Parts: sequence; C-alpha cells; structure tokens
Amino acid sequence: MAPDATDEDIARVVERVESVGGEAFVSKGLVRTIIGLVGDIDSFHHLNLRTLKGVADVHRISDPYKLVSRQHHPERSTVWVGPEGMRVPIGPETFTLMAGPCAVESPEQTLEAAQMAKSAGATILRGGAFKPRTSPYAFQGLGVRGLEILADAREATGLPVVTEVVDARDVAVVAEHADMLQIGTRNMANFGLLQAVGEAGKPVLLKRGMTATVEEWLMAAEYIAQRGHLDVVLCERGIRTFEPSTRNTLDISAVPVVQATSHLPVIIDPSHASGRKDLIVPLARAGIAAGADGVIVDVHPAPETALCDGPQALEGSDLRELASVVRRFPELLGRTPAGDLAR
Amino acid sequence: MAPDATDEDIARVVERVESVGGEAFVSKGLVRTIIGLVGDIDSFHHLNLRTLKGVADVHRISDPYKLVSRQHHPERSTVWVGPEGMRVPIGPETFTLMAGPCAVESPEQTLEAAQMAKSAGATILRGGAFKPRTSPYAFQGLGVRGLEILADAREATGLPVVTEVVDARDVAVVAEHADMLQIGTRNMANFGLLQAVGEAGKPVLLKRGMTATVEEWLMAAEYIAQRGHLDVVLCERGIRTFEPSTRNTLDISAVPVVQATSHLPVIIDPSHASGRKDLIVPLARAGIAAGADGVIVDVHPAPETALCDGPQALEGSDLRELASVVRRFPELLGRTPAGDLAR
Amino acid sequence: MAPDATDEDIARVVERVESVGGEAFVSKGLVRTIIGLVGDIDSFHHLNLRTLKGVADVHRISDPYKLVSRQHHPERSTVWVGPEGMRVPIGPETFTLMAGPCAVESPEQTLEAAQMAKSAGATILRGGAFKPRTSPYAFQGLGVRGLEILADAREATGLPVVTEVVDARDVAVVAEHADMLQIGTRNMANFGLLQAVGEAGKPVLLKRGMTATVEEWLMAAEYIAQRGHLDVVLCERGIRTFEPSTRNTLDISAVPVVQATSHLPVIIDPSHASGRKDLIVPLARAGIAAGADGVIVDVHPAPETALCDGPQALEGSDLRELASVVRRFPELLGRTPAGDLAR
Amino acid sequence: MAPDATDEDIARVVERVESVGGEAFVSKGLVRTIIGLVGDIDSFHHLNLRTLKGVADVHRISDPYKLVSRQHHPERSTVWVGPEGMRVPIGPETFTLMAGPCAVESPEQTLEAAQMAKSAGATILRGGAFKPRTSPYAFQGLGVRGLEILADAREATGLPVVTEVVDARDVAVVAEHADMLQIGTRNMANFGLLQAVGEAGKPVLLKRGMTATVEEWLMAAEYIAQRGHLDVVLCERGIRTFEPSTRNTLDISAVPVVQATSHLPVIIDPSHASGRKDLIVPLARAGIAAGADGVIVDVHPAPETALCDGPQALEGSDLRELASVVRRFPELLGRTPAGDLAR
Repeated sequence: MAPDATDEDIARVVERVESVGGEAFVSKGLVRTIIGLVGDIDSFHHLNLRTLKGVADVHRISDPYKLVSRQHHPERSTVWVGPEGMRVPIGPETFTLMAGPCAVESPEQTLEAAQMAKSAGATILRGGAFKPRTSPYAFQGLGVRGLEILADAREATGLPVVTEVVDARDVAVVAEHADMLQIGTRNMANFGLLQAVGEAGKPVLLKRGMTATVEEWLMAAEYIAQRGHLDVVLCERGIRTFEPSTRNTLDISAVPVVQATSHLPVIIDPSHASGRKDLIVPLARAGIAAGADGVIVDVHPAPETALCDGPQALEGSDLRELASVVRRFPELLGRTPAGDLAR
Repeated sequence: MAPDATDEDIARVVERVESVGGEAFVSKGLVRTIIGLVGDIDSFHHLNLRTLKGVADVHRISDPYKLVSRQHHPERSTVWVGPEGMRVPIGPETFTLMAGPCAVESPEQTLEAAQMAKSAGATILRGGAFKPRTSPYAFQGLGVRGLEILADAREATGLPVVTEVVDARDVAVVAEHADMLQIGTRNMANFGLLQAVGEAGKPVLLKRGMTATVEEWLMAAEYIAQRGHLDVVLCERGIRTFEPSTRNTLDISAVPVVQATSHLPVIIDPSHASGRKDLIVPLARAGIAAGADGVIVDVHPAPETALCDGPQALEGSDLRELASVVRRFPELLGRTPAGDLAR
Repeated sequence: MAPDATDEDIARVVERVESVGGEAFVSKGLVRTIIGLVGDIDSFHHLNLRTLKGVADVHRISDPYKLVSRQHHPERSTVWVGPEGMRVPIGPETFTLMAGPCAVESPEQTLEAAQMAKSAGATILRGGAFKPRTSPYAFQGLGVRGLEILADAREATGLPVVTEVVDARDVAVVAEHADMLQIGTRNMANFGLLQAVGEAGKPVLLKRGMTATVEEWLMAAEYIAQRGHLDVVLCERGIRTFEPSTRNTLDISAVPVVQATSHLPVIIDPSHASGRKDLIVPLARAGIAAGADGVIVDVHPAPETALCDGPQALEGSDLRELASVVRRFPELLGRTPAGDLAR
Repeated sequence: MAPDATDEDIARVVERVESVGGEAFVSKGLVRTIIGLVGDIDSFHHLNLRTLKGVADVHRISDPYKLVSRQHHPERSTVWVGPEGMRVPIGPETFTLMAGPCAVESPEQTLEAAQMAKSAGATILRGGAFKPRTSPYAFQGLGVRGLEILADAREATGLPVVTEVVDARDVAVVAEHADMLQIGTRNMANFGLLQAVGEAGKPVLLKRGMTATVEEWLMAAEYIAQRGHLDVVLCERGIRTFEPSTRNTLDISAVPVVQATSHLPVIIDPSHASGRKDLIVPLARAGIAAGADGVIVDVHPAPETALCDGPQALEGSDLRELASVVRRFPELLGRTPAGDLAR
C-alpha cells in the first residue's frame, strides 16, 4: 500500500480479495503496510487491485503457468519424435542434433542437405516449406510441395521431419506430412496458432519470441499444453538487444533457467541467433555445455545460392567440426546420442 | 570487402551482381575496397553476397518498402473510417481521438464507455471482442457477440468502430461488423493475418510490434498494402526496453520518424504503452505535440471491475482533462478536430 | 518462500530479520508462504535473505532513495542557476531553455552560438570544454581554455553557463568558471565524480545514463544530495534500445515518472537523444507537452564545420521554429518563461 | 546520397572529402548515388558529412580501433599477471580461473576465500577493496586497508591479485598493492580512469559496460592501449536486456566475436552476469566451450553473511563442481591450465 493509505483503503483491499475466496494477510509497518494474498491466482486477475485507492503496487509471487511447470511435475520430460521405427528422443538423458536447409528449394537440394545433416550426426531433419518473411518481396517457401519433398527426404534418410507452420489454416496439412510442428519466433504469441497445433497431435518445437521473456515463452507453451498434449520442446534462438555484431543475442542462460522452472526439453538454435556462420560451432559447443537437450542448425549444400539465410548455413569443414563437437561434448555431461536410442 | 580480399574476390562479386542485371562500382582504397551496387534490390536478395570469399559486410542503402514509402508518394495520406454519414478522417490536417473499453464485456458497459468516449471528443470507438492474452487462463473476449455489441454502440452513438482481429479465420466476420480492423502488437509479424486484412476492404489500424523496428513495422504495412489497399494507419504503442517503471517505453520519436519516411498516418496509444493511468494525459499531450495524427485510449465506466487492463482505463477527472487537451492542443499545430470534417 | 520451504526455513528468515531490529509478518497460504518485512531497509541489505534455504525471491516495496524522493518532500523543487543578477530558475512554475554548442571550439564560435541561443529564448548557455568521447582519436575539448571562453560568453550575453565535468580532479576548476556542473550520460554511475560535484557547491545537471533505469538515475542524484545539497536537475537524454532510426530512444515517459516520485526538476535533451536535427523541434514540443521543466539543445553557427555532433546542431529556420515553440507552448501548461523571473 | 540529391550536392561531398586528403568514388545508379570514401578515417570525423545537403546517410566500413585490432596484429595475445615466480598467463593456449570474494571484508574472510579459490583451481585471486555501489547507503569497501589484506592473501597463497579501481586518484595506490587493475562495468566509459590505468604499468582487466556494444568495449581498450601498454584482458559480464530472470544477459557470443576482431584475451564473469548461484556452473561450462580464455567467479566462505552479492557466491558442492569443470573442459579445447605454466 502507498505510505498515505488509510485503514479504509486497506479494508477495501481485504474485502475485495475475500470476495473471490482469497485470503489477505495484513502486515503493518512504520511507513507502509504490505498485504499478502493467498488463494487461486486466476481469480485475482479480475480484481484490478492496482485501481484501488491506496494501492501502490502489486507483485505476483507464484508462477503463472501450471502444466509446463516443474512445480507439479518435478521430473524433466522426454519428447519422442517420428513414426515408429525411426522415433528419436529429446530429453534429459540424450543429445539431439536437428539439421537441414532453412528453406526447401528443390528435391535435390533437400535430399543433399538431409544427407549432410545425417552424416554430421543429426537425427531429425529440419526444413522450411512455409516461410514467414519480413519482406513481402522475399521468397515465401514452396508450401505443400515443400512438405512432400521433406517427406520424401525422410523416406530416403530415415530422419523424422520438423517444419514450421505459420497459419492455423495450414496446421492439418503440415501435421499430415511432418513429424514435429515448429512455431517460429514471430508466431510465439499467435495464440490461435498455438491452440491449433496443440490439437494436432504431433510434437511441437516452440521457438522463443525474439523479444519474449522466459515467462511469456512458458505461457505460450502452456497454451499448447492446455489443448491436451505436453510434447513441447522449447528452442532458444536469440533475443533482440542493442548489440549489432550478431543478428540477435543468444540467451544462453535461458537453458538452465528454463530447466529450473519447467520440465520441458530445451534446445538452442545458434544459426538464427547469430546469423554468422563463424559463430555456429562455438555457440553449439556453448549450448551443449550449458546443458541444452539439443541443437538445431542450418545446413545447405551450396550456401551461396540459398534462397534464405545462406550466410549462416554450414557446409564442408565447419560441418565436420560440428559433427566432431556433437560426438565428443554431450557425453561429458552424461548424455547419450539420441540416435542410439531410436526405436 | 575485407582488407585481405583479392582481385579475384572482387571480380566474383562484380560478376555475381551483373548476373542479375545490377551494376557494381568498385572503389579501391589503401586498405579496403568498397563496391557500390545499383539496380533492383529484390534481385540482390538471393545473391548471398555475405557468403562470398572476401566480403566483409553488406549494407543496404535504399528503403526496402515501396508502396508505403514517401519516396514515391510524397504527400502524406488521409484515411477515412466509417460508413457514409459518419465517416471521419485520420491524416495530416486533422486530429482524431479513438477511445473505448479495452474489452467489450456487456452491452451496458460498452454503451456507457462509448458515451464517455464521445463526450471526451472521440470520433472513433475502440473495443476488443477478440483478445490476445498472454495467459490462456485470462479472459479471451466475447467474440462475435462482442462485435454485435460494438455495432449496436455505433448505432447509438454515431461513432465508427475499430476492433482487433487475431486470427485470419475471423477476418470476414470482423470486417462485416467493424469499420476498421486492428492488428495488435503481438500479430504485427503474423504475415498470413496481414494479407487477410489486406484483402478485406476495410481500413486497418496496424500497431507496432512491441519489439519491432520502425522499418519492420513499415514492412508489415507493406504486406497489407501489397494486397491492394493503402488505408493503413500506424499506431505506436510502446517498445520493450529495460526500464521497469512503465509497461513499455513509448517511442515518441517514432511519430516524426515515420512521417519522414512514410505517407501513412500515425497515432499513439499511451494507455498500452505505459500501463499507468497517471501517465496517459501527459503522454497524450506529448503525442499531439510530436505531431501524431491521433491518439487512442482506454476508457471504462468502472475500471476497478474491468476484465482487462483496468489500471490504465480513464474515467472521471482524468477523462475530462484528456478532453480539454484534445480541444486545445491540436489547433496549436494547425489541425482541425476530425469530427468537424465527418461526412 | 519456495513451495517446499519448511517451518524451520520460515523461522530462520524471521529470526534473521528480527536480529537487525526488523519485523517479519508471516502469511501462510495453501501453496506458499509470504513474509512481509518492515523496518529500516538499509539494515536488510546485508541479510542476504536470497541465500537462505527455502527463500524463493525477495521484492523491495519501498523506494531506495530518500533525499530526492517526494515521499518526504512532496512539493516539487526549484533550482536557481547563475550569479546574482542573472540567476534563473528551473522548476515547476517556469520553463527554461538551455542552448549552446556541443563543444567550445573558439571564442568567436562560442559567442556566436551564445547569441543564437539567447535570441531563441535560452536563459542558460551550454557548452562543452571537457568532452568524453568514445574514441581516443576524436576531439577531446579545449579544457580550461574552453571554460574561460564560456565565462567570457557569459559576460557578453548575461547567460549563466552549464558545462560538463568528466573527472573528479577537474571539479574545482570547472566549479570556479561555470554556474552549473553537468554530469554526462557516461558518468552517471561514476560515484566518485558524483560525490565530488556534490561537494562543489554549484547546482548540478545530471544526465540519465543511456542504459540506466529511472531508479538508478535517482540513486545517482541521491549520491550528490548526500554530500549536502539538493540543487540537482535531472536530464532525460535517450536510452539505448534496439531501434536504429534514432541514436537513442527518448524516454518521454520518464518526465512524468520522475515527477511522480521525486521533487527534483527534470528537463529533456532532444539533440543527443535523437542525433537528428529534423527531430529536435517535434521532440522539444513533446517534452514541453509531457511537462518537462526545460529543454536543452545544441546550436552551432556552422554545423557543417562543428568538431562534435554537427548533424544535430540547430541553426537558421529550425532554430527560429524552436524559438516559436518555446514562446507558445509552455504557457499552455501554465508555465512562465524562466527569463521573466531572473534576478 | 538522397534520391533527390543534385550533381552539385554530390560535387560538394567529393570536394569536402578531398579537402582532407581523402578519395571519393562516385557510383551513380537509377535512383541513388553512392559515394565510397577512402583515406584516413580520423580526418573524416570532422567533415560532418551528414549535415551536407543531399546526404542521406553515412556508414563506416572500417574498424575504428587500431592497437587492439587483429587487423594489424593477427596473432592472439597472451597477458601475464603477477610478480616473478607467481606469474600466470591469460591467453589462447591456456585457461585461467580467477576467484575470490566480491568484497574484502576482513583478513580471515579474504584468506579463507583465497584458499577456497586456490583449491578450486584458481590461479588469480579477485577481491574488491573499492566498491562502486548503486546506492550511497550500501557498503563501499575497505579501501586501502582492503588492498593490504589482499596483498597478505597473495603472500599466503601465492595467487596474484586483481582488484577494481574506481577513481583515477586511486590508481597509484591500487597499482602499488595489486597485480592487475580491474575496470568495472560502470566505469568502462570513464575515459579519464582508462587513461590513468593505461599509464600505471600493470595489466588491466576491462569489464564490458553493461550496455556497451562490443565496438565501444574495444574502443575503451583502445584508450588504455593508447597510453602505451597492451596488457588488457576483456571480461564479458552480461548486458542489460528486457529479460528479468537473470540480473543481466550473458552475451556468450561476445567471446568468439571479440576473438575474431581483436587479439586481446577475453574471459567471462558468470557470477555478475546472472546474479544466481545455480547458473554459475552451467554458464562457466558454456563460457569455456565458447572459447573463453578464462572465467572469473565470486566465492565466499559464508555467502549468507557477505556484505556484497552474497546470493551469487559459490561455496561447498557448487565450488567443487566448478573445480571439476575447470579440470575437465579446457583440455577438450586444447588448452593447458594456466597454473601449469606459472613462472
């Protein structure tokens, strides 16, 4: 309460809280009075306590998310991706590399990228068929044709496929072809889309909004979980800051922060975070060392002709270096390569 | 080019640029060579010059947007909102106040808020029927029923209605009831939704993404404009920074920055920017003084019972003060109240 | 307390708080226990409650600053600047324009800029003799010679002088020549310098750190105030964000936010905030309208030859427009031009 | 140049550039003309090209720093710290752990912390005698007495000492007692202090300003280097972002970014970046994996009674885990423990 709050102001707050079944504990001090609220936090949402006379500020103490919280589900979860026979885990015991082209451009380019991915140790193939682009004049993806190309690459390589869905109207067709649905950074707060993928019955890869707090990201996961399934993998992909030397700033701390508060797996995307090929291997190493359950990277057989994000796609010696990192580092942290457990 | 770029590296860049019909001007210095590119910038997108050997960095000099740019349309535009007889302008000659409840809760609350808005000088009624909420446990709006309530309030007060649309699947029904479609801050980069509203034939109020640059915001407007109509009004509503004393930081400079580069009208939203009722009147004054073409605010007959954003809704003496500001300030900048020109 | 805190954990916190003379009020809920602390907040600083077992988080409710707070000094203050006979106020009743060259380059340039400033309505002359520059290869100012030039310009124009001090070792010599000592944005957290100016007996213009919160800014003012005088004027000069179209983002909300919580006067600096000459007049208007007690701008007789920040210095028609704004806008908010009250 | 720039405007820019001995290469396009400048970039600083008619924007292409750049010094540097006999390296071949108490409180606490540091594998002792504190009411350090305590701990443990200097007037006394001078985050742009430590003849640990870009940080190092010595070690300690779950956001990418552009060693400070004890070990692992040349952490024998930053000080099992990380991870990246090379 504000320093000049009256007893009447205090009584009004208490009454309001009790009116929705909550309890209010009043602590009177020399200068200020603090009121602790206990009860169903959702019912407090509509009380608008901040509008009451004499109220100086309101702090929430509990977590606003439930289904994705470790509070009621202390064990960290493992999410399985892919059809039977090529199903791979993402979780606390394993390490999963996802790789593939930023955008699906042709069957040849996709297959070649998929084979590069596999040879580097990837167990899930990523690739974009529907691309959200800042400019309406940029390449928007091949759409359904791209999904078919990805499905063919899965048959050829045995790698399950993750691909982005950008519109609730496309969820059904994407879910038909892909093994995991990706929500991109620009759609993290597209709540209609979150609910639609939540009902699609496939695991979800939820990228962090480039300016979302960890709490908002977990609330977005809660939207998906609320629709009935909890097979959500979180992906840290850089946040927007004032630093111009990288496209975004990889928030490496988000990995242990999420793991402390949510049971969901969390991976990192060094390609989109940095936008710089020379940083991908060091950042992938850092992500593994911070405890990430996986890493997702762009690979492309000919980055200089890529229709999307060529400057950050790995190939050649960089890719071999990543493969070496993926072989050596996860076991230092007691993790098994996800591919070893495929079933 | 990097300091160690070879003549061959330079030749490769020139050849690449010329291969898509561009021109490349080479400026050789003691330490570095700079290559200036001239031609169709869209064709340069796919060149991936950053991936070429010897290239140190690539800077774009021209604006990436076209239809919304002042470069080809130097006169600032006026957007008209509402059905014939109650049509009001938003543009460089006038000043427009939009006001109404954050969320439509009931016919009585909406009508009362609309009358408050009108008495304060508002000429457009705002109100949310579909609400994008960070928490799935928060009130999500009345949906179509809310649209009907808004339409009724329009009949009763003569104020055209602006309301948010959050899902491409809802565009048709919202366009049927409302006079202006609002894209909220969380959906500024929901490109499918931008295209859908671009085709709906109603003027659009495009809020800035809370972490979007001015350029990205104008690119979002370009998405709408590309679908064939240019009746887009931009709304600055605060950006995310490290400062905790306000919900977001109102980027007041965005008003003259946008006006220098785009012909579209631009208004400000001090309610959502600050989240604090005590700041709304000073920020509204600042917005008018900075040259905004309008202001949008939350009003509510009983903020303490509001289902959404009660702490920032105006009423009583605050609202009367806002009304006084709206009467006195715009004419200092040579603007006419929008209501005087309704037709 | 964390959900799994034990009674023992709670008892330990209570005991710790009481050990320094504080009171601890325990509110037990279904899931969590909240403990409200009351007492001398400084004594709580060293308790390290966050390190205690079972403690989930600690929120401070009271303001950490005292001398500059409105809590114990509800009336807003007026600071007087200048020697007797040319003393001018900065405060809630008046409006003060400060203007002058970013850097003092020569007697002629400084005098000419001072006369431009005066003709535009300025009542305080600004000018830099000691310049903090990001690059050691940039012009660093004329030093003591610059101070003398400023003092001469004061004699010639009757305008008191504000100038920056960048090193505690220079405070004495700057205080000897200038009427007001400026702490620049890069030195806002240079606590030794704050204490030195706090002892110099001259009013202080304290710029906000470009990445400081309002609370940290007020704590910096508290450092000065602690040394015995309260003649501190705060200056909002833009904060660092992700938006590249302006050098920094003018946090216009900081004006009413500061005024709600501190009794000190607050002004804005649109020149350094934006770095763009075309934005200075609109931002100055916005600042006045938001309630600022003054505005500080760069003027230069020949911006294209300026040794510092030429692109943002006003001259000619822009300066005449600013003069017109300064004549017309403040009275709308009930303010008197500071020059009318000089004594 | 702006689209409407005239031939005369272009000629004026060329003339201006040539007047200071530079070359200007004009590239004329359909819509725009681009002018590439070549020559001494420092001489271009004062041209104020942005103020010239027809100039739309100015981009710098070359690095603004020289002495600390890899451009003229491609080999990465090693900095040696400590008196003969206990001198340890920080550089590309080794890994260095620095540890100690945030603040020196007493001889006993400091010695105990130094022994904890040594047993965890640290080869340099950190400890604060002069503390820059946001609040004037917080503990400010023991000053010269603290320096003496640190020097005693060095004798007892054989660990060279790094300690912060916050005021140019204290440089001499700090340099007399300590082996390495630390510039804290709040003083990164305190140019007088940078120059003073640059002349003191001891190696410098330069923390990144919490809101400084990598380029500004390197410019600060350039200030030190300009005074004649290059024994500067950079320390990434977190930047200010909108994310509240950590005190600052550790910019892990800064490690490879700095190493790509400067020859100076770079270490990370996970304690101050996160402010959370539970994140220090994962972030230390991430820093090593990203290629950092060292890590600096807070340790304290009794964090719950620490006078400064207790919540982030390591002890007990956390410290043992850090020790294990420091033993196992650096060699994976081909690094030798710094202690093995002491001389």
